[in-house]
Amino acid sequence: MTELSVSAHRSDSDLDGDTLHEECGVFGILGHPDAATLTALGLHALQHRGQEAAGIVTFDGKQFHNEKRMGLVGDHYTDPATLAKLPGFIAIGHTRYSTTGEVALRNVQPLFAELEVGGIAIAHNGNFTNGLTLRRQLIAGGAICQSTSDTEVVLHLIARSRYTSTADRFIDAIRQMEGGYSMLAMTRTKLIAARDPIGIRPLVMGELDGKPIFASETCALDIIGAKFIRDVENGEVIICEVQPDGSISIDARKAGTGQPERLCLFEYVYFARPDSMVGGRSVYVARKNMGINLAKESPVEADVVVPVPDGGTPAALGYAQESGIPFEYGIIRNHYVGRTFIEPTQQIRAFGVKLKHSANRAMIEGKRVVLVDDSIVRGTTSLKIVQMIRDAGATEVHLRVASPRIYYPDFYGIDTPDREKLIANQYDSLEAMCKYIGADSLEFLSINGLYRAVGGEDRNDTRPQFTDHYFTGDYPTRLLDKDGETMGRKVSVLASNG
Amino acid sequence: MTELSVSAHRSDSDLDGDTLHEECGVFGILGHPDAATLTALGLHALQHRGQEAAGIVTFDGKQFHNEKRMGLVGDHYTDPATLAKLPGFIAIGHTRYSTTGEVALRNVQPLFAELEVGGIAIAHNGNFTNGLTLRRQLIAGGAICQSTSDTEVVLHLIARSRYTSTADRFIDAIRQMEGGYSMLAMTRTKLIAARDPIGIRPLVMGELDGKPIFASETCALDIIGAKFIRDVENGEVIICEVQPDGSISIDARKAGTGQPERLCLFEYVYFARPDSMVGGRSVYVARKNMGINLAKESPVEADVVVPVPDGGTPAALGYAQESGIPFEYGIIRNHYVGRTFIEPTQQIRAFGVKLKHSANRAMIEGKRVVLVDDSIVRGTTSLKIVQMIRDAGATEVHLRVASPRIYYPDFYGIDTPDREKLIANQYDSLEAMCKYIGADSLEFLSINGLYRAVGGEDRNDTRPQFTDHYFTGDYPTRLLDKDGETMGRKVSVLASNG
Amino acid sequence: MTELSVSAHRSDSDLDGDTLHEECGVFGILGHPDAATLTALGLHALQHRGQEAAGIVTFDGKQFHNEKRMGLVGDHYTDPATLAKLPGFIAIGHTRYSTTGEVALRNVQPLFAELEVGGIAIAHNGNFTNGLTLRRQLIAGGAICQSTSDTEVVLHLIARSRYTSTADRFIDAIRQMEGGYSMLAMTRTKLIAARDPIGIRPLVMGELDGKPIFASETCALDIIGAKFIRDVENGEVIICEVQPDGSISIDARKAGTGQPERLCLFEYVYFARPDSMVGGRSVYVARKNMGINLAKESPVEADVVVPVPDGGTPAALGYAQESGIPFEYGIIRNHYVGRTFIEPTQQIRAFGVKLKHSANRAMIEGKRVVLVDDSIVRGTTSLKIVQMIRDAGATEVHLRVASPRIYYPDFYGIDTPDREKLIANQYDSLEAMCKYIGADSLEFLSINGLYRAVGGEDRNDTRPQFTDHYFTGDYPTRLLDKDGETMGRKVSVLASNG
Amino acid sequence: MTELSVSAHRSDSDLDGDTLHEECGVFGILGHPDAATLTALGLHALQHRGQEAAGIVTFDGKQFHNEKRMGLVGDHYTDPATLAKLPGFIAIGHTRYSTTGEVALRNVQPLFAELEVGGIAIAHNGNFTNGLTLRRQLIAGGAICQSTSDTEVVLHLIARSRYTSTADRFIDAIRQMEGGYSMLAMTRTKLIAARDPIGIRPLVMGELDGKPIFASETCALDIIGAKFIRDVENGEVIICEVQPDGSISIDARKAGTGQPERLCLFEYVYFARPDSMVGGRSVYVARKNMGINLAKESPVEADVVVPVPDGGTPAALGYAQESGIPFEYGIIRNHYVGRTFIEPTQQIRAFGVKLKHSANRAMIEGKRVVLVDDSIVRGTTSLKIVQMIRDAGATEVHLRVASPRIYYPDFYGIDTPDREKLIANQYDSLEAMCKYIGADSLEFLSINGLYRAVGGEDRNDTRPQFTDHYFTGDYPTRLLDKDGETMGRKVSVLASNG
Repeated sequence: MTELSVSAHRSDSDLDGDTLHEECGVFGILGHPDAATLTALGLHALQHRGQEAAGIVTFDGKQFHNEKRMGLVGDHYTDPATLAKLPGFIAIGHTRYSTTGEVALRNVQPLFAELEVGGIAIAHNGNFTNGLTLRRQLIAGGAICQSTSDTEVVLHLIARSRYTSTADRFIDAIRQMEGGYSMLAMTRTKLIAARDPIGIRPLVMGELDGKPIFASETCALDIIGAKFIRDVENGEVIICEVQPDGSISIDARKAGTGQPERLCLFEYVYFARPDSMVGGRSVYVARKNMGINLAKESPVEADVVVPVPDGGTPAALGYAQESGIPFEYGIIRNHYVGRTFIEPTQQIRAFGVKLKHSANRAMIEGKRVVLVDDSIVRGTTSLKIVQMIRDAGATEVHLRVASPRIYYPDFYGIDTPDREKLIANQYDSLEAMCKYIGADSLEFLSINGLYRAVGGEDRNDTRPQFTDHYFTGDYPTRLLDKDGETMGRKVSVLASNG
Repeated sequence: MTELSVSAHRSDSDLDGDTLHEECGVFGILGHPDAATLTALGLHALQHRGQEAAGIVTFDGKQFHNEKRMGLVGDHYTDPATLAKLPGFIAIGHTRYSTTGEVALRNVQPLFAELEVGGIAIAHNGNFTNGLTLRRQLIAGGAICQSTSDTEVVLHLIARSRYTSTADRFIDAIRQMEGGYSMLAMTRTKLIAARDPIGIRPLVMGELDGKPIFASETCALDIIGAKFIRDVENGEVIICEVQPDGSISIDARKAGTGQPERLCLFEYVYFARPDSMVGGRSVYVARKNMGINLAKESPVEADVVVPVPDGGTPAALGYAQESGIPFEYGIIRNHYVGRTFIEPTQQIRAFGVKLKHSANRAMIEGKRVVLVDDSIVRGTTSLKIVQMIRDAGATEVHLRVASPRIYYPDFYGIDTPDREKLIANQYDSLEAMCKYIGADSLEFLSINGLYRAVGGEDRNDTRPQFTDHYFTGDYPTRLLDKDGETMGRKVSVLASNG
Repeated sequence: MTELSVSAHRSDSDLDGDTLHEECGVFGILGHPDAATLTALGLHALQHRGQEAAGIVTFDGKQFHNEKRMGLVGDHYTDPATLAKLPGFIAIGHTRYSTTGEVALRNVQPLFAELEVGGIAIAHNGNFTNGLTLRRQLIAGGAICQSTSDTEVVLHLIARSRYTSTADRFIDAIRQMEGGYSMLAMTRTKLIAARDPIGIRPLVMGELDGKPIFASETCALDIIGAKFIRDVENGEVIICEVQPDGSISIDARKAGTGQPERLCLFEYVYFARPDSMVGGRSVYVARKNMGINLAKESPVEADVVVPVPDGGTPAALGYAQESGIPFEYGIIRNHYVGRTFIEPTQQIRAFGVKLKHSANRAMIEGKRVVLVDDSIVRGTTSLKIVQMIRDAGATEVHLRVASPRIYYPDFYGIDTPDREKLIANQYDSLEAMCKYIGADSLEFLSINGLYRAVGGEDRNDTRPQFTDHYFTGDYPTRLLDKDGETMGRKVSVLASNG
Repeated sequence: MTELSVSAHRSDSDLDGDTLHEECGVFGILGHPDAATLTALGLHALQHRGQEAAGIVTFDGKQFHNEKRMGLVGDHYTDPATLAKLPGFIAIGHTRYSTTGEVALRNVQPLFAELEVGGIAIAHNGNFTNGLTLRRQLIAGGAICQSTSDTEVVLHLIARSRYTSTADRFIDAIRQMEGGYSMLAMTRTKLIAARDPIGIRPLVMGELDGKPIFASETCALDIIGAKFIRDVENGEVIICEVQPDGSISIDARKAGTGQPERLCLFEYVYFARPDSMVGGRSVYVARKNMGINLAKESPVEADVVVPVPDGGTPAALGYAQESGIPFEYGIIRNHYVGRTFIEPTQQIRAFGVKLKHSANRAMIEGKRVVLVDDSIVRGTTSLKIVQMIRDAGATEVHLRVASPRIYYPDFYGIDTPDREKLIANQYDSLEAMCKYIGADSLEFLSINGLYRAVGGEDRNDTRPQFTDHYFTGDYPTRLLDKDGETMGRKVSVLASNG
């Protein structure tokens, strides 16, 4: 489910819960007169990381401005009237995919608070594994929480910090947070970026016209012609500040504990845009490598390699190049499905995967087909696609998956279905899974095949180069909320609208 | 500007800022299965106290529910789909007129907070004279304010109170608040009502099917067929609680300092509905008495008494009965103006008062007319009405106003224009004012005439029976925010939308 | 149900179908640079004649412009953005109450057609009694009807007329139409006004800055300060045209058959605004006279005369003056009900009339009350109001109605309930009706009492001065559609939206 | 600009007018209980043929139902509430791209008329070359046109036909129409399909559960699992009718004049979905063949073949396979741009093509790149893409276009820019064009190369197998409106909203 042309559209697979979702993308810039416009463009480039809502906060020297909208960045933030409400030279923005059913605007980031030392806005990508625990402590201490967002917990910690400067308060606050996150904050003069101690979520630093920029991925720099400087390091806090003379100071600190970086492998497998560089590596090349390794590990005699669009396309190209089997578009994707916000009738849902995909019969009929997909979550989509390929006249259908089997939920910002709904936990053998899906054969990339595709080396089991907990159960942090809480994610006691 | 048929519609006079506005109405009920529906009806009856927005919070035994809407109660809360989102047996509701330009939904009451001891929602009518001062202290103490509403300050005080029970925390909080207010609060089991120490804003207690109800005015009891029990006393806190056996306990406490009650005279002059009983007195009778006393104090030879609708009608009827001059509808009001939410063009505004009022020429032409209005704020409307009556052929126009001249701003929940815009401060003599307005004569009711109309006795200058600061400058409380703050009401530093 | 302050709001009575509705108001102006703005104001003054939708067509020398909106005039046509879309110096407008459930915008007038000789727009108030018959003939002749409006039939007749000039085609068309109507038409240079042969519906001519204006009532002239010229006569067609030199020619022709005028009495009883002059008579004075005559015909000993607002107010004032019994506001009307577009829940509807009216107990308790209303249609509202007055403590309730009993449906533009739902057809004696309503006594004004109140003389039975068919069954025209068609008003075969 | 995954999204190129647009897609089904749902799905599959609006008409045995919506099919017609308004067993639907600025709903097809013989609805894809001429004649004959759509002209011709049966009237009407069109009509019992005399626009017949279906392309059959029967022939009218016994009769007639078929080549180059069969040929295979022929005609030494997504992808794959140069995704497309209905600011537009496309630097840097696109219209997009590829570090950029140069406008349903804006008319040599675009070399597919790719043979110049007028100026019909009318397409004289 990675992407050919970037298109993490909400689609049938989403309706079936058969997709993983990243929660968010962030973007910030300091010192530029077009701060809001550039932030809107950056968020547009990060749209694949969250399509539900987007927000931007700016500061214009006198006042903070905040716009929040449900829906896509391009639907709202390209409108001159909206941008006109966001004057200023500092901006941070956020695009969001909600993990809960709660879509109220008050949860849309960035969140803002007026502190004694002045206003502060923050936005983050990722998730805190002790957010509920801290929230409970804060409420016991007399804090009032208006949203169900963990971001608000960070705001309260900043507001209550005993430190004086905003930067120190910010560092004080994030030191109390556990989990995987990339966070941006802004005040009247500062833009602050921070990444969690082991760097699970990505965050890069760039520069345009000498002004610092932070973004979840490099594609957000490319869209505005900004220069990539470097990745924000794991556990690093970078504080940029406009000085009285207009110059910008940059102060990089280590807030973390010196642990090695462990980026999330799913950024390479599925989330990041193929044209982004994540951790210094081309996502597209990594995905092609996954296909190449998959062809080496699990070859098959066939007439045609067909990608499951859009995620499986680069791996399919790698598989075809390695195997010498022709690459063809055997499945056509209808991109118009993407934005179907209105829940379809049961009648229409019964037509299933065809709303999004259709078979290109001329390339399928009478052929032995290798289908290449990026990953399998619940398997419901794979089942329909294999059936569709058979209906179009394929004589054999071999499914090759460019990542290992997913056994465990994520707690660092990826929305995963309940454990028992993961196909890997429903069928204990590849054979059983293959039979369920209806393919003639089914193979997954090995964990080492994946590590080599991304980083060039096998997994270092004593000190893994990435985090791969969804495949292995090896969680890189403790899970305070989860272990202390049997109920799972507690919903707000206030159901609100409007 | 009182009312004949209740109709404090937003209208041309509003566009000119030539009206006073009450900020809010409140309603609450405990223990009734139709809590939200009854609250919606109660708020509908209180619509004249605030037309900008309305909110309702309910609790259904498990969860709190909250709906907020811009606009009229009847436009939203009669909709079955909306009411279905508000299940439960406890409800409080609020209808609001905003004193600032800020109309964001996050400011719409009731406001809710999740405390350690459980959720609490509060709503109030009135204004705190130390709200900004307390807000500043709270932010210095690490609190995060999400709205610009003073109500949120009360929530923070409750959240931070060292007391254990919600009722004690509530009392602890309102003891810190100064000003004029009637407040309702609800928790999972309790409905709490409170009135400020001198009872500036009204609040009544009623009962339906044995269940306690609180509302700003008795008309909100009448609409649902509820029985009036008594006024909540000044400085009183009444705590109603559902007991485990389903019965309801009622605990009335005194939170105030034993000062005598001083109800706001403008409730009688203009705000309250004519069919309401305020402080045990019929508002309609009080208004007719104002007209009777006005006729005694300022008689004039004329052919016809014409009310300025809708506010001047009861007083005009009193004036006509006392003077023996026939009462006629010489001005017709177009009620459709009421809801013109779209700002009219300059071109249309130039047509002025005629959008709302038109002369009934058949009753005016060739006649000596006594116009009776309830009050004059800036005088711009009076000017246009007198001109309209002259244009319709009146030979003389005598304006009689059923309350004294307004010299001072209010700080207890009435939205008054800047002092220098009050006509009484622009013209120091009645003659000058009369000339500006263009009438043949102009007279106001005396302060004693007003006191007698409402309470039967002259003003007791050492211990006034009511608060009359807009006429006399005799403010009944200290004004901490005002005196400590030269800038006036500080606007939020975050300009927000959506 | 006439009006005190003009307020034919949609209200509870409407929900019960217990009101009569006029279908439309029209306004047109020729040669004025602010044509659309003036038309918007005129329609606003005519809002009581139809609140469902409004449309305006203008011509700017090059192009016709058309805006249509569901809802009130003031909600849309005061918006500068809307008016900016209506440039030009000729305009006609229409405000509409729909008699069918069909609310599609394509039915909103004015309707427009591009003819060979140029564009034409038309709008009318009233109804054609042979509209369906003609529609059927047109379809048989190959015409395509896009709306369900009879106005479109007129357009087709104009388009198919064998005459050359637009004016001749227009006269040719309306000569084929039967019924009661006041119609306006506009072309690139002309404004045309026409009234049906016996003048059932009103239409007046006025003038502003030397430019001709036509409107349903004089109140639409008053709002813009225009001068009243004269009534358009029954059967008259007035053609105003801008000449090449900018001057305006006016050509008045007789299209009718020389019959005497018979204005609709219900314009005086209920529809027209009290400040309008209809047929040269003050509506307000006519209504007061109805009350005076009612007091003479049906006196009663009582303590207080209470109008049923807003319709009964002028008659109640007349009743009080004639009888010497004090006039008091014993019922308070909540004008906010007016615009409740969202259908209330059954739960809320059960609270009935109180959403709109409430008793002013201080004026009712312990008193003998004379209630005065303008008319009774189904009686359901009267029933609730009498009960409300009793509940408020009245010792006696006497209902006096300022018009005769309604027995027959209207076919000239008034929306009447089915015959069997009219209370006069349900109870054959006054006693039975009085018992149903729950009053101590019930009396209606006599037909001669009504004629004298309006025109000063008894009904001339051989040649009645007005049309009074709802009271008498004496229809002033033949009823072609009704008599030829057993199914009643045929609904469109296309159910459409959007 | 063909498609990889089907995605004729409105995008930057559209903002620049640098794309051709098909006007419409049609779908109809007879005798199926889920007629509306199946039509919605069919239209969804045809979404690439028109994204502006969609309409569906059904008949349920008693009444016709019609829903029209601006926007995408999936945004409205998957909603159970909308489908519930479309009951019935016959349905036709239409999806539309507007060629004019006029987007009023009244222009959205299908259009409906009530005839003497019963209702009829029609919808078509294509354009009439004598539509204005006929419209003028109809208006002269007294017809009233409500829309600016040529479809209405057909309705009038049907309504005015002297034939008795609907089918005969329909044939009578389309015999008067000239141009290129595929049309569907429905009555209470019939579904009628027709294609223009030379079959410029495609139309296929299918079958589901024994019920006949017509659709613009086969992909609309595939989505619902319907079986493809055959193409509707050029000049053919197929009348399907439900018989009293529930069976369906099918009557195929020839309305045309026996001319040979000449399908529009642009269906193969760009419009049709790659998985559709048009004229019995796979669109995907035709596009790959265009790339293969292009590689043969215009080879170049290079390191990588990069498609301009999505249109150029199949041709690029063909080019890569023929040339042996590796195929890589050097350009990433952001599909979220697709639905940006809000016009972006000038500031954002200045960022140009990057809103939609971004370079995948890892596949470009240091490489000689062959870019393959499907066609070039104005060249503004090509210019930006070539620049983007250079900026990403390509050492050489060679542009290969899989169709000939476009010199002439279309009059059969494709929206083409003014002739002088076509790049082929701005630069008379390939060299000049190449220099403008900034490529190292530029080549177009020859006309014979295109004919061979689609039909296997060179162009038969005396009797061309397809219509190719945009390349050659050889228009297959006379152009009555164009030749008789110097002003071009006349706009309606009524500017309307709502």
